[in-house]
Amino acid sequence: MTRRQELSWRSLAQRRRYSDGLDAVEARLAEVAGAYAGPLGAAARSTLAAGGKRVRPLLALLCASRHAPIPAAVVRAAAATELLHMATLVHDDVLDSAELRRGRATVAHEYGVETAVSTGDFLLARAFAELALTGDATAVALLSQTAVGLSEGEVFQRQEAFDVTLTVAAYRRRCERKTADLFAAAARLGALLSGVDARQQQVLWEYGRLLGLAFQVFDDILDLSGDESRTGKRLGADIRDGTVTLPLIYALEARPDLGPRLRDGAALDETAVAAVIADVRATGAIERARDVAIRSIEEARRLLQTASDDVERDLLEEVARAVVDRFG
Amino acid sequence: MTRRQELSWRSLAQRRRYSDGLDAVEARLAEVAGAYAGPLGAAARSTLAAGGKRVRPLLALLCASRHAPIPAAVVRAAAATELLHMATLVHDDVLDSAELRRGRATVAHEYGVETAVSTGDFLLARAFAELALTGDATAVALLSQTAVGLSEGEVFQRQEAFDVTLTVAAYRRRCERKTADLFAAAARLGALLSGVDARQQQVLWEYGRLLGLAFQVFDDILDLSGDESRTGKRLGADIRDGTVTLPLIYALEARPDLGPRLRDGAALDETAVAAVIADVRATGAIERARDVAIRSIEEARRLLQTASDDVERDLLEEVARAVVDRFG
Repeated sequence: MTRRQELSWRSLAQRRRYSDGLDAVEARLAEVAGAYAGPLGAAARSTLAAGGKRVRPLLALLCASRHAPIPAAVVRAAAATELLHMATLVHDDVLDSAELRRGRATVAHEYGVETAVSTGDFLLARAFAELALTGDATAVALLSQTAVGLSEGEVFQRQEAFDVTLTVAAYRRRCERKTADLFAAAARLGALLSGVDARQQQVLWEYGRLLGLAFQVFDDILDLSGDESRTGKRLGADIRDGTVTLPLIYALEARPDLGPRLRDGAALDETAVAAVIADVRATGAIERARDVAIRSIEEARRLLQTASDDVERDLLEEVARAVVDRFG
Repeated sequence: MTRRQELSWRSLAQRRRYSDGLDAVEARLAEVAGAYAGPLGAAARSTLAAGGKRVRPLLALLCASRHAPIPAAVVRAAAATELLHMATLVHDDVLDSAELRRGRATVAHEYGVETAVSTGDFLLARAFAELALTGDATAVALLSQTAVGLSEGEVFQRQEAFDVTLTVAAYRRRCERKTADLFAAAARLGALLSGVDARQQQVLWEYGRLLGLAFQVFDDILDLSGDESRTGKRLGADIRDGTVTLPLIYALEARPDLGPRLRDGAALDETAVAAVIADVRATGAIERARDVAIRSIEEARRLLQTASDDVERDLLEEVARAVVDRFG
């Protein structure tokens, strides 16, 4: 057996560990949603069935100590991060009056706004119930701070809507609250609840934050350059919603005349939105934003090199690369 | 000094302990809301300033062990129960499209539905952040289960709207989820976080539940017989919203012909609502419901007699009596 084969066998065994871990998370999520009858259970099951990439749970699992089986507490924390993420999606869809998410009817559209508000509250409360089962109050403190930030991020996004003077710093702050802090919390929870030491927890926390930032920037780029048939979303949603993203900030720097059109985004028809997208692309703003995301990923990878042997460095590096491969 | 005076001096000193405790809770709540700029902080401060009776925090404080100063953890838990309660009020007002609560504009009305959804999420997350600071995961588990129940109760209420076949058991289940379980949790948290033993925690939990049930039944009675100038609410809101309460269930038993009118509650004008209220009153349903509430209070008081010396029996009995004096 060559060293190369050995490595790939080992990598496979490790992957098995994580696919089993994700199955365990999925079972917890199904149990949570299955325990409730009526519209609340149905709405929760429909949200869970809509799937999604389970990036946050995977991150939590991957940040558990390599030197022992993944503890049940980490599986619970992984499920909790997904429940919290889903709660925000359900409430976001209420706020945006969205009809579709990932090609399926949103809870707000299928069950009504009232049930959607309650379902979001239910998922949020269940996230903390799940995490409390670990018996670790530090973990609860971490996730609750993150949840506070998520609601702040939501408000920032609304407050900053159609503000074409938005700074990169303000954009970054919003990305942290809305995305990166939950990635960071997922990573740290995996480490914390598997006995990884405080120094390494800090490294993984920062790794998660950098990964989450890149993830959000790539997501914002996709809204201007993605393949609609693959993403399942119409391009230009951010333009219509007035969400001023990093590529739009860079485009505005190069072409201040885009300002009035973006301020007017809600009123633009399909052709006008397509014209704005073409103009944004022509400024090179997409490439500039992409560079920011890639630098964030590179910083995350550099950080990993400082991590101890307790940390699943190779796979976490693969995850970082995969984010670039997939989106970049 | 007579024995009577001695008792009242002691009682006063104790009251000082609780008024100081409530001040400490209020300071925590103000700090939570004050820490956030923008519409989220403003909406949270406006919700806190609207006041309310702080019944849940007081219950938590009163259930702390008598044999020591009230621990900071109990103050935090007391604040957490109020934050959770407020989160549900803010979201309820979104669901009901309510414009006024306690004579003030609701968050949904003043800041818009979007900010109200985020503010509710924020208050919910802050409740857990506050409780996590106690370092007690059992406390978090207890409150998160209660929060799950609150969202269930909200859904029950909507599902059961205008259902004139609602049973007393279903009504009771809804009251527990929406009100009594949070009273019970507040009581138990006060005991748990001040080192009261498990047996007494159980007694206080049940005491809180019985008190909460009575509180809800009295509140439902007020909607049919209250003084509008004192409650600040128009009578008959439950009839218009289709919330089938205990007095309405009893009235339906005596007068099945009320069924079609209650099923049609949303369409009734002021005169028709007043006529339904008069008919309900004439059946004696209010007195029957009142008896249920009073029996619940009596059971709570009997339970207290089984409590140990660690428990603030006298004041808790006063609280139970005050609920009857005020509403009954």
